[in-house]
Amino acid sequence: MNPIVVVGSVALDSVRTPFGEAEEALGGSASYFAFSASHFAPVRIVAVVGEDFPVAHRELFDRRGIDLSGLETTAGRTFRWRGEYAAELGHAHTLETQLNVFSSFHPRLDRHHRASPFVFLANIDPELQLEVLDQMESPRLTVSDTMNYWIARKPERVLDVLRRVDVALLNEEEARALSGETQLVRAAAQLVQLGGKAVIVKKGEHGSLYATQEELFVAPAYPVSGLQDPTGAGDSFAGGFLGWLARTGRVDADSRRQAMAYGAAMASLAIEAFSPARLIAAQPTEIGDRVSTLHRMVEFRLEPLSK
Amino acid sequence: MNPIVVVGSVALDSVRTPFGEAEEALGGSASYFAFSASHFAPVRIVAVVGEDFPVAHRELFDRRGIDLSGLETTAGRTFRWRGEYAAELGHAHTLETQLNVFSSFHPRLDRHHRASPFVFLANIDPELQLEVLDQMESPRLTVSDTMNYWIARKPERVLDVLRRVDVALLNEEEARALSGETQLVRAAAQLVQLGGKAVIVKKGEHGSLYATQEELFVAPAYPVSGLQDPTGAGDSFAGGFLGWLARTGRVDADSRRQAMAYGAAMASLAIEAFSPARLIAAQPTEIGDRVSTLHRMVEFRLEPLSK
Repeated sequence: MNPIVVVGSVALDSVRTPFGEAEEALGGSASYFAFSASHFAPVRIVAVVGEDFPVAHRELFDRRGIDLSGLETTAGRTFRWRGEYAAELGHAHTLETQLNVFSSFHPRLDRHHRASPFVFLANIDPELQLEVLDQMESPRLTVSDTMNYWIARKPERVLDVLRRVDVALLNEEEARALSGETQLVRAAAQLVQLGGKAVIVKKGEHGSLYATQEELFVAPAYPVSGLQDPTGAGDSFAGGFLGWLARTGRVDADSRRQAMAYGAAMASLAIEAFSPARLIAAQPTEIGDRVSTLHRMVEFRLEPLSK
Repeated sequence: MNPIVVVGSVALDSVRTPFGEAEEALGGSASYFAFSASHFAPVRIVAVVGEDFPVAHRELFDRRGIDLSGLETTAGRTFRWRGEYAAELGHAHTLETQLNVFSSFHPRLDRHHRASPFVFLANIDPELQLEVLDQMESPRLTVSDTMNYWIARKPERVLDVLRRVDVALLNEEEARALSGETQLVRAAAQLVQLGGKAVIVKKGEHGSLYATQEELFVAPAYPVSGLQDPTGAGDSFAGGFLGWLARTGRVDADSRRQAMAYGAAMASLAIEAFSPARLIAAQPTEIGDRVSTLHRMVEFRLEPLSK
């Protein structure tokens, strides 16, 4: 199967939601992505942690067969994030961000990373995302994520990344901020207009939409019964999306539609527990069942309006 | 074909949006519903207007073959509503409501109204909606709408209606208010739990969802390029939904899925112009094309996650 390289953060998250809290749990965009995608294809992480990064966390990756040869350990403390979610569970309110060892991070890709056919540029400085793209040999599919922090500070670099990758992922707030459009279908169309080859807007409970010059596809969110913690939903979506394409080795438009459903399934698993615990424990049958449910949720028979 | 009776308001709307404005245009929930449903089946309006109601407006109904024998004209002025929409175009901000002749309205159904097999209870006082239900002989399908105004004032009566009709329509704000749940899939499930047979939540640009004990279906919104005025979108949705079922004479679950798509198509037409002008001018081919687009927007091939 086609390996995926992910460049992003491996962090220690402290999160509070109306349903509970977690202290210094394993988090970070590369972690959620890797656990999600590991159900589909081999994953290689490029990231940095401090000397305080727990061995137990490292073992969680090992057990899922995730390649940590690109996980640098440097002097200092691991990246930490503290946040909370209100009752709506829409957007995280960041209480504290300690970049720590992440502040001087420059991704170093070995030969086997550079040769990876599938690439996920998780939410990091767009300049670093461009550095990674420069190092890749001849990837079959490159996908990026971003966040409002970078859109506010380096909008031109975020657009540079959006133009260079095959698929750019954004959440609704980010899509609005970067495009200047309020309605999300128009926001996605505007980002395609600005040079994006394909744009995915993640809309939380409203699902996600995929837009190119030719295509508009929408996938619903899988209806979770016990939402616990939305942290990592977007990266888990990306893991299912890229994971499916890497597993099948196909990147055509129809396969991307399927990949959107696998993304939705993985996001739904991620948010059913604090930390990536539920994502790690997911079984292939339940992933498949969720995709079947999503398929049935939108299915209707086309019947013309005859006289 | 099966006739539909609609009980609701016929009004004069003054609306301002970022894209323009209309003064004393034909409006009201029964009007939007009737123009939408008239593309599918015969429609009979039960409503009241004042002596100032323009003949030209009456002719618009006549030209669409809409039965106005239940449109009472009483001494006084027609119901007037004035509102505006901000850039987000989500929710109307009401500037002025003059109930006028509507304040003492009690629906009077003739024999041919009472015998109608399909019934739409547009947004009026839930006590009046119950009066109408009491008068119906043996309808095949009853559908209700409501609004926050009634949920705030008469929540128990709104729930009485919800329990008695076959399908209850609400927008997202109303679904949250009546159910006490924030997430919309949970809100719909809670309303089913409270006794609703089937609940549709209209989510604007995010489409709509349909929930029963057994089913969960979501339809996307049709991506309009030139949104002008969201007024009447919900009633136009209802017109497409009931219209399709009345036209086919089927009310089974799979037909309701199709009906959701026809509802979305009609809502998208309504919002492309001020007043019901675009809805009136709609051609069967463009309605059909929009439903085909919606079908393609959600289509993906189910392929199992094999080893």
